[in-house]
Amino acid sequence: MSKPSFAGAAVGLALVVITTGAALASQNKSAEPRSVREIRAVLDRQVECWNRRDLEGFMEGYWRSPELTFYSGGTSTSSWDKTIERYRQRYQSAGAEMGRLDFSDLKIEMLGARAAFVRGRYHLKMTSGDSGGLFTLTFRKLAGGWKIIHDHTSSS
Amino acid sequence: MSKPSFAGAAVGLALVVITTGAALASQNKSAEPRSVREIRAVLDRQVECWNRRDLEGFMEGYWRSPELTFYSGGTSTSSWDKTIERYRQRYQSAGAEMGRLDFSDLKIEMLGARAAFVRGRYHLKMTSGDSGGLFTLTFRKLAGGWKIIHDHTSSS
Repeated sequence: MSKPSFAGAAVGLALVVITTGAALASQNKSAEPRSVREIRAVLDRQVECWNRRDLEGFMEGYWRSPELTFYSGGTSTSSWDKTIERYRQRYQSAGAEMGRLDFSDLKIEMLGARAAFVRGRYHLKMTSGDSGGLFTLTFRKLAGGWKIIHDHTSSS
Repeated sequence: MSKPSFAGAAVGLALVVITTGAALASQNKSAEPRSVREIRAVLDRQVECWNRRDLEGFMEGYWRSPELTFYSGGTSTSSWDKTIERYRQRYQSAGAEMGRLDFSDLKIEMLGARAAFVRGRYHLKMTSGDSGGLFTLTFRKLAGGWKIIHDHTSSS
């Protein structure tokens, strides 16, 4: 057995530091309440779906109900059907592009065991010029999991 | 004693109809959960205060905290202090007017015993031209009663 060199010890120390960092990050993540993690997963999935142009997948984050409401600027849209229709017209009609979506400044706050609201910022990177703004989402935990029951979005 | 005339009977009948209508209205009102009535009272008071130019009174509906958030269009304002300052600059600075405020299409929905959200439309009647739009309010029942902890407003 060879005696470990100084370089080897340094690598070992670096690995310990990296491992400890990873362990802390994982600890922080699991310290987040389960509901918050579940809601974050819904939002992550929405972004993934949007960015592969899967609007149906994106819309799974919303309550499939005539009672879903969507406020954008001064316009109120009711129902899941009209909301997806609005998205199709704006982002999938001839000449339109979906762009690359990302969310930032996410703040997920529980309001009870089965309700929460999310504040955040969205950015849409597009060849025709970027856009973005703020959103507030109301979530309820329904039979099918956490769903957005109301979305209020306003652009910058 | 004179025999009641036909006209008298008609008036009597009309009074019965009106009274029944009032009784039904009052019954509907009391059928509304107590929390919903309390939140409605906060909003009613906000409108009254606004319309007598009492901004401090209007702001009593908001959580007096650095954590209060106010989204308007693409702008995010944090804290009660910055929110009242924003209102002062927009509506009480030289040349500005507060106008006459009213809310419509109010939908107050409980999200738990101590949380709710409100969807609605606001109108501001002003000599310089009316304005209006949509709002979403998140309410929490705190020690001082029901308070708006987050406001998302977007104009038409």
